[in-house]
Amino acid sequence: VIHISIIGTGNVATHLAQAIAQSPLLRLDCVYGRSEEKLEPFKELTSTITSLNKIQNTGLLIVAITDDELKTMPDKIAVGDILTVHTSGSVSMRVFEKFERYGVFYPLQTFTAGRKIDVKKIPFCLEAKNKKDLEILKTVTQALGANHFVVNSEQRAKLHLAAVYANNFVNGILAEAKTLCEASGLPFKILRPLVEETFEKVFKIGPENAQTGPARRGDHETIKKQVAALPMDQKKLYIEITNSILRRYERKEL
Amino acid sequence: VIHISIIGTGNVATHLAQAIAQSPLLRLDCVYGRSEEKLEPFKELTSTITSLNKIQNTGLLIVAITDDELKTMPDKIAVGDILTVHTSGSVSMRVFEKFERYGVFYPLQTFTAGRKIDVKKIPFCLEAKNKKDLEILKTVTQALGANHFVVNSEQRAKLHLAAVYANNFVNGILAEAKTLCEASGLPFKILRPLVEETFEKVFKIGPENAQTGPARRGDHETIKKQVAALPMDQKKLYIEITNSILRRYERKEL
Repeated sequence: VIHISIIGTGNVATHLAQAIAQSPLLRLDCVYGRSEEKLEPFKELTSTITSLNKIQNTGLLIVAITDDELKTMPDKIAVGDILTVHTSGSVSMRVFEKFERYGVFYPLQTFTAGRKIDVKKIPFCLEAKNKKDLEILKTVTQALGANHFVVNSEQRAKLHLAAVYANNFVNGILAEAKTLCEASGLPFKILRPLVEETFEKVFKIGPENAQTGPARRGDHETIKKQVAALPMDQKKLYIEITNSILRRYERKEL
Repeated sequence: VIHISIIGTGNVATHLAQAIAQSPLLRLDCVYGRSEEKLEPFKELTSTITSLNKIQNTGLLIVAITDDELKTMPDKIAVGDILTVHTSGSVSMRVFEKFERYGVFYPLQTFTAGRKIDVKKIPFCLEAKNKKDLEILKTVTQALGANHFVVNSEQRAKLHLAAVYANNFVNGILAEAKTLCEASGLPFKILRPLVEETFEKVFKIGPENAQTGPARRGDHETIKKQVAALPMDQKKLYIEITNSILRRYERKEL
């Protein structure tokens, strides 16, 4: 049984704490938070503390705080020889180089308060200063029933950017689609089967093979008509996405 | 039983022909195509013809051809009093105004050769010159086990544009994500759980509530870092999508 403590009370901390508490191969020792109020949801899972000085010996310390907070955190706490990892997509492992044993435990997923995520569907990106510690992180992901990938800090930064596209940007495009859909007087849900098929196709045959539409065909006449039909403030977005597709298929850009 | 004939041999024609042939409440009379070769896949379903003059009396004629071909088609064929519909998202119903009875039968879905789509998951957008004919189109979608929406030509043009975002543009963004992912040396499938959760969240809580990331937070510092990390030809796309999200949340644009 691996003993784990968590620093942080946000969405990542909450989801990890629940998953760790449920695993028979792991034990959640303690959760640190800034206030008793923020620790409330954790109290049914384990003991909680509001002072960093009180972090006791534990097998693994997971630091799930914001990127900004991560920068100053190593100055505020002594972890001794406890293996300490952060969960950030974009912060280098070296932020912890003051520590004896350190690494990264990055869950490649989007977490929302109040929404349960099956921990088995989280790919964990692992990195550690020492080989032995990497093995400990692998064991933890296995105990959670999740998949892991060994990813260094440079790879992780690129992967995190890919995740911005796959999550934030796809969501942003679907927000535009919803606006256009509702402008036509139809409910957004009418697009659901199309979006579902879009996602299935992307992972079945690859986005480069699944691409259809006027940009894929290089059909500049239809593209012009569609740009003309858009409200002023939406034209630039349409044009840049269309250019990215035209470019991909080596066609003339707008 | 409603008798149906189809003009066209593309992906829409293929998927519709299969679904119609399988319904006990519909009968597929005939499929027209330009060549015997293109008609090959239809021959196991029904009789096929290569001359438009041979279109016999049928209950409903579905014209599933390209937008360009649609423009000249009414001059090339006499349909008499057969209810004639096209399947285009962007062409007005009036393209058929020479005909006695006409309408639109637009399947809001993306069709790919060799990929089966459950017809029950296609929302059909229906429009007809006469009320009675609209009822016939509703009966056909019911016989297919599919949902229908009554959508006029103006609404349909906007909806079609929404579909370009939901399908073509989301696919284009995921192609960029794949490129970034593979540049980090990791397989595209590592993003699948994230994309799946993105999609589920969008339709559960709406894209406006599901949005996260630096643009949602108005975090210009992180945005600048990410733009700097991108290859030159990808910066503009990143900036325009980010601007569209910043705009949506009334934050300062780049």
